[in-house]
Amino acid sequence: MHPDGVTRPAGGWRFDSAEMSAGDPGWRASRRALAGLLRVAEPPAPALVALVEAVGPTLAWEAVRHRDGVLAGAEVIRLTQPRVAGRSPAELDDIAERDLDRAADAGAWLLGVGDPDWPAEAFEGLGYLTSPASPGHGAAPLGLYVRGHELPVVSRSVAVVGSRAATPYGVRVATELAADLVVSGMTVVSGAAFGIDAAAHRGALHAGAGPETWGAGLETGGAGAGVLVSVAVLACGIDRSYPAAHAALLASVAATGAVISEYPPGVTPARYRFLVRNRLIAAFAAGTVVVEAGARSGSLNTAAAADGLSRQTMAVPGPITSAVSLGCHELIRNRGAVLVTGARDVLAALGPIRPDARDPDPPGSTAARPTDGLGAAPMLVYEALPPRGGATVADLSVEAALPGPAVLGALALLEIEGLAERTQGRWRRAR
Amino acid sequence: MHPDGVTRPAGGWRFDSAEMSAGDPGWRASRRALAGLLRVAEPPAPALVALVEAVGPTLAWEAVRHRDGVLAGAEVIRLTQPRVAGRSPAELDDIAERDLDRAADAGAWLLGVGDPDWPAEAFEGLGYLTSPASPGHGAAPLGLYVRGHELPVVSRSVAVVGSRAATPYGVRVATELAADLVVSGMTVVSGAAFGIDAAAHRGALHAGAGPETWGAGLETGGAGAGVLVSVAVLACGIDRSYPAAHAALLASVAATGAVISEYPPGVTPARYRFLVRNRLIAAFAAGTVVVEAGARSGSLNTAAAADGLSRQTMAVPGPITSAVSLGCHELIRNRGAVLVTGARDVLAALGPIRPDARDPDPPGSTAARPTDGLGAAPMLVYEALPPRGGATVADLSVEAALPGPAVLGALALLEIEGLAERTQGRWRRAR
Repeated sequence: MHPDGVTRPAGGWRFDSAEMSAGDPGWRASRRALAGLLRVAEPPAPALVALVEAVGPTLAWEAVRHRDGVLAGAEVIRLTQPRVAGRSPAELDDIAERDLDRAADAGAWLLGVGDPDWPAEAFEGLGYLTSPASPGHGAAPLGLYVRGHELPVVSRSVAVVGSRAATPYGVRVATELAADLVVSGMTVVSGAAFGIDAAAHRGALHAGAGPETWGAGLETGGAGAGVLVSVAVLACGIDRSYPAAHAALLASVAATGAVISEYPPGVTPARYRFLVRNRLIAAFAAGTVVVEAGARSGSLNTAAAADGLSRQTMAVPGPITSAVSLGCHELIRNRGAVLVTGARDVLAALGPIRPDARDPDPPGSTAARPTDGLGAAPMLVYEALPPRGGATVADLSVEAALPGPAVLGALALLEIEGLAERTQGRWRRAR
Repeated sequence: MHPDGVTRPAGGWRFDSAEMSAGDPGWRASRRALAGLLRVAEPPAPALVALVEAVGPTLAWEAVRHRDGVLAGAEVIRLTQPRVAGRSPAELDDIAERDLDRAADAGAWLLGVGDPDWPAEAFEGLGYLTSPASPGHGAAPLGLYVRGHELPVVSRSVAVVGSRAATPYGVRVATELAADLVVSGMTVVSGAAFGIDAAAHRGALHAGAGPETWGAGLETGGAGAGVLVSVAVLACGIDRSYPAAHAALLASVAATGAVISEYPPGVTPARYRFLVRNRLIAAFAAGTVVVEAGARSGSLNTAAAADGLSRQTMAVPGPITSAVSLGCHELIRNRGAVLVTGARDVLAALGPIRPDARDPDPPGSTAARPTDGLGAAPMLVYEALPPRGGATVADLSVEAALPGPAVLGALALLEIEGLAERTQGRWRRAR
């Protein structure tokens, strides 16, 4: 355990309160800028994300707090106006600093757009989602408060979500499914609600109580090279426990995994924030499993987001006489969700896509190619890979115009798909 | 009720014991031939079916009982040898006559290949099924003993099958599903086993207890233009009730529907006969619904036969913790069965095949219409609905040639689908 109470990987480079007071002023300014931007814009805020991606958080924050419409653009000025109005640039900085302090008090650190290990690929496609809560488009988060360890690795994570009004059957299924997924080396991603969400975390925590988990690894001074057990994504500030009855559960999740929020400290949960939050649950996982869902359950919204992000959607069937299995059956029947009855089915459904399984290619046709189904980043990296010889990650980063971590993530995927191979530290297309 | 105790449609042309003793000698010879052929060959017997299709039952029977290898062919001689050996042609005729008498005593008549209303289309494709019970191929039946009324009309029939070891959940679902299908104007086809089969018949019989059913129509001297309520296909002789506890149930099925067997009277049920019988359950229905099935349930074999015949396979989900829902989930996940949660889903799944569903519409094409996906009865009622003014249920019953309850069921569906509306007790197409 870190002396200030923030558990984090040994050697982590990230913000904590100690670094904030003594560290690199540029770093500190960028944290303050991210905190400020998260405070003044209600997510999703696509125009603001685009600005930060273009000029970085520090400059974007300068533009916003000085109401510099030339740099920020009219849309960013408009969307930040309600929370910027009547406050001086200095006051806005103070507010941002206070948010960082409150986050640190809650044991959280802040990661944002432009940071070296910001998981940009996880959020690819979020901009194309129509948000049910806002009339515009969806968007990636600007930043994330993280209480606990790393962000989840998408390819090793499964979202397990469902109804608050779960039945004993659903609770049992969610608990066992999450436990089995953790035993299989996967991270469980969910919300923090009563019912299925809580059952998923409890099952994951129970299975993750072995010596290989983050928390235990840290406590014993281990390498910390374990896998996150479970991740809870909140629809309120990172310093809040909602529902309050889950304060201890969330502390356990943070101890062996992570609690994550894109909302500034103190923000209250609201109905539309759950809907906005759901896209992040879907984005952090290779696939989303709905365990129980009524006809209007929010977890159907999470499944829709997963589908929109081209992630695998899955559902657990149940009695047709149960109102909270209705949504699951609808997903399977009409929305292409895969019926799953356990962790083994989930892992099978997440297996590599093999588009070559159908027809032989007629010449010049639009037949399935091995690269079909790849996301934008893996496709760019694949295009950049030389067929012979080899390229370094740095070469590929330049060629594909993608940051190093995105290239690494894409290469890992391409390797799994049998499309890329590594020899002597250099990469080329697989033969 | 017919004087000899055989319920049958008024004006039916078929065999009964009275006709047998007084009727056309050619007709009598063909019945005797069919009975004899059914006695000497264990189904499926593709070579014998081919012979009867080629030369008719009377000549085929002559060839078999005289062991005429030139006409019958070596394969037919081989497969009939075990039951023909040691018997003279006259003895074989006597055996066939006795079978006809025993069938008549059980209230059954016999229909076979070459008869004017032999439902050859229902059996198309059976020759291509690999029979799990015999090393050769599957085959259509040579003939069928029928206790009750007509054979079911494939397009208006749904097979509802499942485990003998059904749970209370499965029994409830099968009962309600079958009842709702009958209310929608469909015939339920099943076996006669404990569990799901019996529940399906009971649900069908309960829903079919109105005045429009065959049995009641006949008893009251009605036109008999109703729809069969349910059909049981046996894996033993038509004169046997297996299980014995279902004797009264089978009598009720025969009274408002039909009990059918391709086995000669007296034949005992055997494990492989259930597997052979299952192909007929699938063949008599536009689709097969599996309600509950363990991993090795015989109903999975029925579903496989339905699939092999290009009929719709469907399965009802259940708790993943239930061993008898395992087979249903497997059908949905890996064998292309449609998940159904009620009669409405079944009718939707059986809706007209739309070969245009893939390609963009050429002009004047059969683009998607609001009535696509409707079952046969709702489609007929929709066609009968006036666009303006209004029609009574009685009007629609006449126009659509459907019994009143079927019209009511169809109207309920059409109203839900937004295709029909009611004003002042009269119905018209929704605008």
